[in-house]
Amino acid sequence: MLELRSAHTDSPTGVGHEAYELIREIYPLCRSITGEGVRDTLRSVQRRIPLTIVEVPCGTHVFDWTVPPEWNIRDAYIKNRSGERIVDFRQCNLHVMSYSAPVHRTMTLGELKPHLFTIPEHPEWIPYRTSYYQENWGFCLSQKQLSQLTDGEYEVCIDSTFTPSGTLTYGECYLPGATEEEVLVSTHICHPSLCNDNLSGISVAAMLAKTMAQRERRYSYRFLFIPTTIGSITWLATHEDVVHRVKHGLVLTGLGDRGKVTYKKSRRGVAEIDRVMSHVLKHSGQDHVVVDFIPYGYDERQYCSPAFDLPVGVIMRTPHGAYPEYHTSADNLDLIDPQSLAGAYDHCLIAFDVLEQNGVYQNLNPKCEPRLGKRGLYRSIAGQQEKQNRELAILWVLNLSDGTHSLLDIADRSGRSFEEIRQAADALTACGLLKNAGR
Amino acid sequence: MLELRSAHTDSPTGVGHEAYELIREIYPLCRSITGEGVRDTLRSVQRRIPLTIVEVPCGTHVFDWTVPPEWNIRDAYIKNRSGERIVDFRQCNLHVMSYSAPVHRTMTLGELKPHLFTIPEHPEWIPYRTSYYQENWGFCLSQKQLSQLTDGEYEVCIDSTFTPSGTLTYGECYLPGATEEEVLVSTHICHPSLCNDNLSGISVAAMLAKTMAQRERRYSYRFLFIPTTIGSITWLATHEDVVHRVKHGLVLTGLGDRGKVTYKKSRRGVAEIDRVMSHVLKHSGQDHVVVDFIPYGYDERQYCSPAFDLPVGVIMRTPHGAYPEYHTSADNLDLIDPQSLAGAYDHCLIAFDVLEQNGVYQNLNPKCEPRLGKRGLYRSIAGQQEKQNRELAILWVLNLSDGTHSLLDIADRSGRSFEEIRQAADALTACGLLKNAGR
Amino acid sequence: MLELRSAHTDSPTGVGHEAYELIREIYPLCRSITGEGVRDTLRSVQRRIPLTIVEVPCGTHVFDWTVPPEWNIRDAYIKNRSGERIVDFRQCNLHVMSYSAPVHRTMTLGELKPHLFTIPEHPEWIPYRTSYYQENWGFCLSQKQLSQLTDGEYEVCIDSTFTPSGTLTYGECYLPGATEEEVLVSTHICHPSLCNDNLSGISVAAMLAKTMAQRERRYSYRFLFIPTTIGSITWLATHEDVVHRVKHGLVLTGLGDRGKVTYKKSRRGVAEIDRVMSHVLKHSGQDHVVVDFIPYGYDERQYCSPAFDLPVGVIMRTPHGAYPEYHTSADNLDLIDPQSLAGAYDHCLIAFDVLEQNGVYQNLNPKCEPRLGKRGLYRSIAGQQEKQNRELAILWVLNLSDGTHSLLDIADRSGRSFEEIRQAADALTACGLLKNAGR
Repeated sequence: MLELRSAHTDSPTGVGHEAYELIREIYPLCRSITGEGVRDTLRSVQRRIPLTIVEVPCGTHVFDWTVPPEWNIRDAYIKNRSGERIVDFRQCNLHVMSYSAPVHRTMTLGELKPHLFTIPEHPEWIPYRTSYYQENWGFCLSQKQLSQLTDGEYEVCIDSTFTPSGTLTYGECYLPGATEEEVLVSTHICHPSLCNDNLSGISVAAMLAKTMAQRERRYSYRFLFIPTTIGSITWLATHEDVVHRVKHGLVLTGLGDRGKVTYKKSRRGVAEIDRVMSHVLKHSGQDHVVVDFIPYGYDERQYCSPAFDLPVGVIMRTPHGAYPEYHTSADNLDLIDPQSLAGAYDHCLIAFDVLEQNGVYQNLNPKCEPRLGKRGLYRSIAGQQEKQNRELAILWVLNLSDGTHSLLDIADRSGRSFEEIRQAADALTACGLLKNAGR
Repeated sequence: MLELRSAHTDSPTGVGHEAYELIREIYPLCRSITGEGVRDTLRSVQRRIPLTIVEVPCGTHVFDWTVPPEWNIRDAYIKNRSGERIVDFRQCNLHVMSYSAPVHRTMTLGELKPHLFTIPEHPEWIPYRTSYYQENWGFCLSQKQLSQLTDGEYEVCIDSTFTPSGTLTYGECYLPGATEEEVLVSTHICHPSLCNDNLSGISVAAMLAKTMAQRERRYSYRFLFIPTTIGSITWLATHEDVVHRVKHGLVLTGLGDRGKVTYKKSRRGVAEIDRVMSHVLKHSGQDHVVVDFIPYGYDERQYCSPAFDLPVGVIMRTPHGAYPEYHTSADNLDLIDPQSLAGAYDHCLIAFDVLEQNGVYQNLNPKCEPRLGKRGLYRSIAGQQEKQNRELAILWVLNLSDGTHSLLDIADRSGRSFEEIRQAADALTACGLLKNAGR
Repeated sequence: MLELRSAHTDSPTGVGHEAYELIREIYPLCRSITGEGVRDTLRSVQRRIPLTIVEVPCGTHVFDWTVPPEWNIRDAYIKNRSGERIVDFRQCNLHVMSYSAPVHRTMTLGELKPHLFTIPEHPEWIPYRTSYYQENWGFCLSQKQLSQLTDGEYEVCIDSTFTPSGTLTYGECYLPGATEEEVLVSTHICHPSLCNDNLSGISVAAMLAKTMAQRERRYSYRFLFIPTTIGSITWLATHEDVVHRVKHGLVLTGLGDRGKVTYKKSRRGVAEIDRVMSHVLKHSGQDHVVVDFIPYGYDERQYCSPAFDLPVGVIMRTPHGAYPEYHTSADNLDLIDPQSLAGAYDHCLIAFDVLEQNGVYQNLNPKCEPRLGKRGLYRSIAGQQEKQNRELAILWVLNLSDGTHSLLDIADRSGRSFEEIRQAADALTACGLLKNAGR
């Protein structure tokens, strides 16, 4: 059986290296749900794809939420009595809890401790912590650093600002297709120096957008680069009029590690994207997992909220929380590799192929089988087995193209790959035995 | 995950002992489908719960059946030539086949033998036999007793009476609720000195009625204590106008032995009671079995007959016929224990809790997730895992409360216990994010 | 539980021998999709059952096809320089590729070779090849024969004729029943000296027709003996007005080998014939397989084409292609045996019994159970287990005969055999508790 391969995939390994380079470029930036780090990140993406950078004023009401003040940070440290920066934001932006309020004073270790976060079971790693919606400040450091702190006074400084007149920034790459019906691809951009979560999603989304921009498209494609939760809520709240156009969607996250691919179904569970991704992974010949929707995870939580219930699933490798490096400084450039990124890119692109090409066809000779031999579609001497696979695909398409089965239905029922079935449909259409009956 | 426990279960072991004491009290009585033994039994129950004792005249036509003459028995024996009572009703009421016609004469062992029943494979045990609708008489005795009978003549006496002007007696405890919609609980009362079948059912039903009488009830509850088959037929025939109110039902039987709990589904198979009992048992943390309906067993045969097709299942421990003591003198006070009775009581009460509390809710903020943090329903610092279970239950309720999913649907889809989901729904309702959308 | 046996099966072994004798008689004939071999075969069948032999003019347009010229062959050989027939049609009709064009000339081994077919992995066997719709000629021979051919010249002769004014021949045995609704039984007749594929199908079909001709029939039965593909297409094209009468159908093929029985479902997958055959095989007590429809195989390809979508399945033993002797000279009289033929016959006949007797019944006493005891349908002394199976079947029929369940539905849901359920329905009908509610 033909393995599913994207006809247009040009050297997936090349794509993997390109994606990895983007990650390496934006890894040092201090991103959060707002601020300059996000803007710098989007500018890097914009150098690769036609990206619109959108600014939404802080204080904007978006459903039950309000866009928070823009947060920026210049510097942060803890200095010991000798004036040494023993915890230094310049060395690693994870050292500061995201959205920390400004602070600058001297305090005892006892006063400081409630603001310190570590991972005792991984004494070398720095954790990642945020406090977006409750004012607070904190430092994240390794357990090893913490254990070296002696009693005494420390100079504590977080040079951050909240700007109520600022904006929330997100990026959108909209590629119009033959119809207004959309494929939505969403990835979050709010994590600082963490590679798998979420730079892998940003880079694979950028590579997909770059490829799709060069193709003829039946569907329109919308790639969203947004801060998680508040970003998708903001986009949904400001685009209620176009939400209904989203016919299929994928949230991209955690695609760079070396684990097998996981597809998490949309809330609907039987949406076309759910069937397509299950089909693509099944026929990829690679180990994978398909899991049911749960209302926890990434921005699918918003896309799949009950009033929208969009057919949006999630593609990832090892699920968040299921690898020890998750939300720690160990989610770094070593955790990910170009091959993993390229594999994820490939699965998505093949899924787009299936979405683009899927359709319902009508057998124009539905009474008994047509004569395939005279049309060059059948062995002339019965008993030869060589062309049997192709013939079987043709027979399946003829048998089930009664106006109710899509090509994907036929592929799934026959157990053959979509690619085989589509090729059969093309051959039958070319010789006038089949016609597209619409979607 | 929270185990399902009834909020109102006061010391289930105490309930088990109370149930066991009731069984000990009524164990000696000679019950049949009619007669004084039934009345005495119901009077014992009546001392514990508000029970109406109903008398239905013999000869009453009930669908295809006629209430048979009332049967009573004073004494019965087989005497040998020395005048010794070698089989004696006063020692064990199982010795007489239930509904035996009166007989008093001397006969040879050869004449007597067709009227003697034993269990050869359990030579110490006395079997239980009945002949309600075909006039006959007989003695049940142990194989050991039978083997000691020598040829010769015996005085055979059964001092029983059939009273065509008598009545059939059953008990009913009706607890009105906020609606006329009913939960029916039915148990049979026609077996003589047999503990598991059926005194366990009587006692657990009595304990449930006692508890439910003290609660606020959305549903009305009807507890029926009836002779098997003719009793349920009589009740159905005389209550055709209220049968439609029965929305859920359970037949209680064989709940005292030490086997795992078995739930037998209603004829419908997907009734709410079927889903509730499956859920309750699954989340009980205890070994159990759920089996499909078959039209054989206890009074569910009548409740689930095609013209009624009531959603009535059966809760039992080891199914009838599947334990060797079934319908023998070994189904005695040693076969059952208070813990088993209490466990069965607990499962039923939790099922009632679920029925009472189940409902469909509407998410009042269905566009994206609401801000849970400002309502105290979410961790303020992301990355802490402690409260995640509660949050997940809340997210499930929000996500699926679209007016089509009941709390039980949400519990089953999420794999979480009904109790967790209900608590989440309560918390969301309390802060105005959810409202009850009716049943 | 009762095994399913046909009440009317007279000595299935006798039938097996009779079927085997028919095969032995027609084995030597050189059949193809047209020609004298087919006519001779049908005449043999006609001596056993009331068969109409139908001739359809060559050139007739049947949907996308045209009936091809009639092909006949008198002789064929390859002679070496000594004039010896080293490949001789008279010895085995498989030696000539079916529908070979006439040829008579001398050629080198090099010229001859593209027209020679062997089976290298079975050097003693002769393959079976056809080229119906592309003019060609060829010889099939054993690898051993081929290896003995030395370079040099050979006299090659195929004394065949194409007759455009001829006919395509098929046989039809139509047995009218109480209704015009039909059971279609189809078997192909176009293979030369091959026993399992397809003489076994011809012989079992003939035996079934012989038996059914002697029975009272609710359904009409139509047995078709047709050349594969062009035959079923021709029949469908010339009977479009009666096709809708076909309510159930079976294609018979490969029934004589010693493998287990395989039932291949119709395209619908849940047609009554699919359920009946699955039931019959399950309750046969014999190893068997039920497989899903695929649009490849025998004439079910045409019957199940989308515009017809007839409920026609396939009964066979080892599927075509799954035994090495398939389409070789080793598919001979040794490959098959009378017991296998008789077993297949029996399964079909029992399936016809089920189809004939299946129906929906109405419980006339649907409120509670009726009193079975007074009607002789229930044990008088409870506790005896002997008659319990019969009683259970009776209770199932009463419980599910609500006007929506057929006897087959009841048999499948209860896990009991159709025969048990039908007997229970008969007993209940006899005493007025049940009535046939139509189909």
